[in-house]
Amino acid sequence: SFSRGMQTVTMIPGDGIGPEISASVMKIFEAAKAPISWEERNVTAIKGPGGRWMIPADAKDSMDKSKIGLKGPLKTPIAAGHPSMNLLLRKTFDLYANVRPCVSIEGYKTPYTDVNLVTIRENTEGEYSGIEHQIVDGVVQSIKLITEDASRRIAEYAFEYARNNQRSSVTAVHKANIMRMSDGLFLRKCREVAETFKDIKFTEMYLDTVCLNMVQDPTQFDVLVMPNLYGDILSDLCAGLIGGLGVTPSGNIGANGVAIFESVHGTAPDIAGLDMANPTALLLSAVMMLRHMGLHSYGNKIQTACFDTIRDKKVLTGDLGGNSKCSEFTAEICRRVQDLD
Amino acid sequence: SFSRGMQTVTMIPGDGIGPEISASVMKIFEAAKAPISWEERNVTAIKGPGGRWMIPADAKDSMDKSKIGLKGPLKTPIAAGHPSMNLLLRKTFDLYANVRPCVSIEGYKTPYTDVNLVTIRENTEGEYSGIEHQIVDGVVQSIKLITEDASRRIAEYAFEYARNNQRSSVTAVHKANIMRMSDGLFLRKCREVAETFKDIKFTEMYLDTVCLNMVQDPTQFDVLVMPNLYGDILSDLCAGLIGGLGVTPSGNIGANGVAIFESVHGTAPDIAGLDMANPTALLLSAVMMLRHMGLHSYGNKIQTACFDTIRDKKVLTGDLGGNSKCSEFTAEICRRVQDLD
Ligand SMILES: CC(C)[C@H](C(=O)O)[C@@H](O)C(=O)O
Ligand SMILES: CC(C)[C@H](C(=O)O)[C@@H](O)C(=O)O
Repeated sequence: SFSRGMQTVTMIPGDGIGPEISASVMKIFEAAKAPISWEERNVTAIKGPGGRWMIPADAKDSMDKSKIGLKGPLKTPIAAGHPSMNLLLRKTFDLYANVRPCVSIEGYKTPYTDVNLVTIRENTEGEYSGIEHQIVDGVVQSIKLITEDASRRIAEYAFEYARNNQRSSVTAVHKANIMRMSDGLFLRKCREVAETFKDIKFTEMYLDTVCLNMVQDPTQFDVLVMPNLYGDILSDLCAGLIGGLGVTPSGNIGANGVAIFESVHGTAPDIAGLDMANPTALLLSAVMMLRHMGLHSYGNKIQTACFDTIRDKKVLTGDLGGNSKCSEFTAEICRRVQDLD
Repeated sequence: SFSRGMQTVTMIPGDGIGPEISASVMKIFEAAKAPISWEERNVTAIKGPGGRWMIPADAKDSMDKSKIGLKGPLKTPIAAGHPSMNLLLRKTFDLYANVRPCVSIEGYKTPYTDVNLVTIRENTEGEYSGIEHQIVDGVVQSIKLITEDASRRIAEYAFEYARNNQRSSVTAVHKANIMRMSDGLFLRKCREVAETFKDIKFTEMYLDTVCLNMVQDPTQFDVLVMPNLYGDILSDLCAGLIGGLGVTPSGNIGANGVAIFESVHGTAPDIAGLDMANPTALLLSAVMMLRHMGLHSYGNKIQTACFDTIRDKKVLTGDLGGNSKCSEFTAEICRRVQDLD
């Protein structure tokens, strides 16, 4: 599939509405003549040697070769001790940076306009270390682990992202007034890296202050970088500002070009199979993916067609305020993509 | 000062604009003939035996007798190892519940209307345990400590608060999908306590989901209860929804009626002494205090006068969109309080 300059992407359609929205994205890519060939893989966690949870070998092999994945929502089985599939994928491929651009979508009304920011979340440690103990009966501790290496790595990623995406400032989000050693270390690394990116403005702000300022005036923010849990919170908060997880793209970036782009909404089992799902979040994640692969013109074309469709308001899925089917919304974007040629 | 049914309150005016806004509150209390006599105490941290930071003995003694404090903003000296004065006060008096009602103020425009919720934050442990270690060079851990006792105590407080304040639901906010033991314990205690309050609806929600839903539609929330750090974040976020820390009251509640009510904004040194400060947050905190003391009619009267003044828009401080002085805003509230008699 490397003929005609095609690049392979591992497609993980996911559960619930996953297959429908993945099919929608693949149709739109075809209409855009994007030079991508898809390798579809199902991902469910399996128990490997020693009882360790792993993703299936054929999915792992595909990702190891393609390096790039696009992924719909995955349900996490309720089996005791079963890890979140999202966390398992991040861990398997050491996807250390979670990147979420939150940009107001013209024509999709929320209480905010002109939001244009990016949250960059450390994805591998912090409060997600998984280390917990019971000290005595009724007394439990969870460990937040912060390392110099992971902090420097995410700080560098944030500044490079800012530079490569024509953004002018990076804000480190922390509670180093309370967690002096851990958030202190994180902050110190951000400061050190900032010294080497003189073209990017650096500021630091307490997490609580960021939350307060964010809902009062999100336009003051640009790129934000932070430890794992703070990123979990802020990325969802910011998604809410522009219309929710149904319209917010997300990328998980690792070393050496490895990355998985994903919609972060749920599997919506209640509407699965009914041709009612909104593929926008997965589509915009796929646009991020195209840019990550250097295929900017295809990404721009698809994004324009998607935003034009939303602004036009004539063909929208139910959650976007319309009453069109997923397939109709998809066809409209395809039509517009072809018109852009 | 217990003559004529007066109750004593320890007044900690605080730093920066603290003295001005405290004077404003005392004037308004006088106009309302609230049966409060003030015992003013300055609070700066001092180093006690063994190098432990403590609050001055005369402030401690006053609080021990009055049990009720009202406090303006305190600056935290930058001296190495100096604790936050706010944290030191919470610790000194074991003020385990931080309570922040966030209610939309008519006439003060924000992107949201009809917000009417209360955040109840566990104030003594969690991520604020202060226990941190360096494991090896470049690897640091902070410990989040959750106990059965503190979790049960805050859950009970939240349900009792809901019942006593005619509220119908309590939502426990957690990340027990990630911190299974610590947030799991917190959540289990909330569930147990919920069983004994059948008149109050109980729900549980992930912190990230709460943040997302909060900015999309805050009217769906009522009473929220959560561990320390989540409360730090959510209480500021919610304050942002109704206009910020300048209009949001706060109370720190301990056992046996002990409580300190405080404005949670900063000391605003740039405008200190210029008669420009907005006393609303401290005044509304004082209203919470009156209710806590069972003096509802005085609290209601003062709150009405304050909200009427804001709705009327004629006499407002600069941050509220007007150009009146603190003393003018205060006089206007006094006038209205007296008219209500
Ligand atoms: C699914 C869950 C484990 C995950 C998280 O907490 O990180 C999710 O909220 C996310 O942000 O991707
Ligand atoms: C001053 C600071 C230590 C404090 C905190 O983090 O709790 C503040 O943000 C608050 O919410 O009262």
